[in-house]
Amino acid sequence: MSENPDAIPSRTVRLGLLGCGTVGGALVELVAERADDIATRTGVRLVVSRVAVRDPKRDRGVPLGAAVVTDDPASVVTADDVDVVVEVVGGLEPARELTAAALAAGKPVVSANKELLASHGAELFELADAHGVDLLFEAAVAGGIPLVRPLRESLVGEDVTRVVGIINGTTNYILTKMTEEGWSYAEALAEAQALGYAEADPTADVEGFDAGAKAAIIATIAFGVAVSAGDVHHEGISSITAEDIATARRLGYQIKLVAVVERFDDGSVAVRVHPAMVPDAHPLASVRDSFNAVFVEGRAVGDLMFYGRGAGGGPTGSAVLGDVIDAARNLVEGAHASLGSFGVATLRPQAELSAAFYLAVEVDDRPGVLATVAGVFGAHGVSIRSMEQFGADDDDAARLVFITHVAREADVAATLDELRALDVVASIDSVIRVLGDA
Amino acid sequence: MSENPDAIPSRTVRLGLLGCGTVGGALVELVAERADDIATRTGVRLVVSRVAVRDPKRDRGVPLGAAVVTDDPASVVTADDVDVVVEVVGGLEPARELTAAALAAGKPVVSANKELLASHGAELFELADAHGVDLLFEAAVAGGIPLVRPLRESLVGEDVTRVVGIINGTTNYILTKMTEEGWSYAEALAEAQALGYAEADPTADVEGFDAGAKAAIIATIAFGVAVSAGDVHHEGISSITAEDIATARRLGYQIKLVAVVERFDDGSVAVRVHPAMVPDAHPLASVRDSFNAVFVEGRAVGDLMFYGRGAGGGPTGSAVLGDVIDAARNLVEGAHASLGSFGVATLRPQAELSAAFYLAVEVDDRPGVLATVAGVFGAHGVSIRSMEQFGADDDDAARLVFITHVAREADVAATLDELRALDVVASIDSVIRVLGDA
Repeated sequence: MSENPDAIPSRTVRLGLLGCGTVGGALVELVAERADDIATRTGVRLVVSRVAVRDPKRDRGVPLGAAVVTDDPASVVTADDVDVVVEVVGGLEPARELTAAALAAGKPVVSANKELLASHGAELFELADAHGVDLLFEAAVAGGIPLVRPLRESLVGEDVTRVVGIINGTTNYILTKMTEEGWSYAEALAEAQALGYAEADPTADVEGFDAGAKAAIIATIAFGVAVSAGDVHHEGISSITAEDIATARRLGYQIKLVAVVERFDDGSVAVRVHPAMVPDAHPLASVRDSFNAVFVEGRAVGDLMFYGRGAGGGPTGSAVLGDVIDAARNLVEGAHASLGSFGVATLRPQAELSAAFYLAVEVDDRPGVLATVAGVFGAHGVSIRSMEQFGADDDDAARLVFITHVAREADVAATLDELRALDVVASIDSVIRVLGDA
Repeated sequence: MSENPDAIPSRTVRLGLLGCGTVGGALVELVAERADDIATRTGVRLVVSRVAVRDPKRDRGVPLGAAVVTDDPASVVTADDVDVVVEVVGGLEPARELTAAALAAGKPVVSANKELLASHGAELFELADAHGVDLLFEAAVAGGIPLVRPLRESLVGEDVTRVVGIINGTTNYILTKMTEEGWSYAEALAEAQALGYAEADPTADVEGFDAGAKAAIIATIAFGVAVSAGDVHHEGISSITAEDIATARRLGYQIKLVAVVERFDDGSVAVRVHPAMVPDAHPLASVRDSFNAVFVEGRAVGDLMFYGRGAGGGPTGSAVLGDVIDAARNLVEGAHASLGSFGVATLRPQAELSAAFYLAVEVDDRPGVLATVAGVFGAHGVSIRSMEQFGADDDDAARLVFITHVAREADVAATLDELRALDVVASIDSVIRVLGDA
């Protein structure tokens, strides 16, 4: 930036890093590159003073300067020359214990650890408040996308009713490739693994656990009630077929893995992760590849969307840096960003939620079958919005594709149970919710 | 929200409103509806204590409770029972004078006034800092979209290189209708006026002045240098034809009015508003109707986009409310949100910028003309990426549509001047930049 003779005299704030992997390394590089500019803009000069890693001898190829490198993370938390603790080590323990120790010692903590916050968030936020220090975690939810700060600050007065997010880049990449290249699920997963987007064991991504942890954090900050990862209903994308994708495209939808966080008028909340058919005209439909986006619905503000990179060293390191500067400024000012206290969440059971559904049913191809099947929907109060019939591979079989109106989950489940028991129904191949108003 | 027995005891913060029109009225309603919830979440109880309006006798249909209604705005600014001043009156004076008086009296100000901030922003920010109080203005830039807070907090450490925004809802509505309904510019403008999106005199919207003011504010906070509305290069949408739209669609583009705010490696900045062809795959291309969106490019964080409602009482009131809560919390904590000091902006002249261009040229339909025209491009170093030739209404004429590679604005201007002087060129009908990497 241009020279600024009026720059504020800067105060040095010293960072202690727990972990120095992809995100920690990116942060070290960003601090080295940007420290002068940050000092000019904010009056705070950032210095990395201590770094805890498993193997202190290994060269990490990042400019650690005069930082002390140690294999003892507890020593970083208590060190006199550490003002702000940055937890980028991941996992539940010892991350929880170290974070709690730092907060109890009156040190602000910046964390990128979604598992930790989704399991122990409310307790750690209250500990931070009790000690009057910051616990900031922008990087834990949607990587580089500023989402936590807008939700907890800009929208704290807003009546947020629903948040729908594409918050797992790996599954969005897989679904994009299936949609645009016509790949099978297995082909797209293999390519995601080759690119390093998916782990050798992809369960956490493809079964929705990663998105679920992030959804729990979003629900906690959006609604002010403590929601943890165990409260989240999960369905993954591993059963999505190329045929589902083709049908969705023909009907004007994109299939996406979405996290849906909702609050109802009675104050109860629901948090779930599942594949959904997203209408082409919806802003989430055009979120491609490994990008993330979070769509927020509020009564006064209307529809908002936040879009960007949900993973990777640069984006995640950038989010950590934003939090570090915030914590450092607050430290200098003697302030801190409180999340307030959390109510107890009343969770609405999945069976009591409502959604429109896309259902593909394989049936015998003979007269009267459609009437029988339609009768089952009707008996359970599930109203059919559209139906298409296709020939199946087997000449004696037909494939019926239904889209229902919004119906109670319990009623749809009962419909499916009764359909499965019918002689004329060979199989129910696909059950995918359709994103809409309920 | 659910009951919270651990709610923080709340401190009352009293608001003084300057103005009570669409946005002020929406704020009064939001405060009445949300005060209990906000107190539970944040420990701050908001009360509207004074409201200055032109005609205090008129019933505004909003729950003003025990608030004192006056026609003397200066009395609101100095009142002992006003802790935070909310400036929603608009215009340059007396808004500037009142804002300065409030800040000088040590009172935080929340402003939705883009003209004021685009003209006097840097001076008012420095006044706020000098008195240790907040001047917050989320609502002044993109209505309900949280953009200012992410830029000034989350991304303050990020090297933001470019921001491209659709930040005028009226023009986006007009261009959407021209694109999707095939309406002419005049038809779409008339409908926007009938819906109340456009004023009887639509100049501020359609010639890019409204977007320009917002762009100046974005440049100031994104780059930390003082940019004012007068520094912005403007081109509007009134010369965009149905034919331009049709050609854009065929070539895979959407025409949008964009504000582009850029910083170059030498620290110079450029701020401009003009129509642009946005590639269909770009996230900004799917921003329809009166929605706004702001696309931010940073070196570490990559691409981000913020999407939502850029105008209207509810969204703008929501943004004002977020700022009011922030200012109230800071007041209680004795902190304030500093923007730091501002450098002097070195503006790069429009002629020295670079862009790809879409150009439609009407020429005589005879052999050798294309070679002559192409020769003019070549002589000025403007490289042609694609060309299409169409018959024109007149049998002896042809229409040439060029898309250039990225070229210096000065070279394109010189090319156009020389083309206009050629006997074989009847007219240059369209000159529209193409959004790309430079």
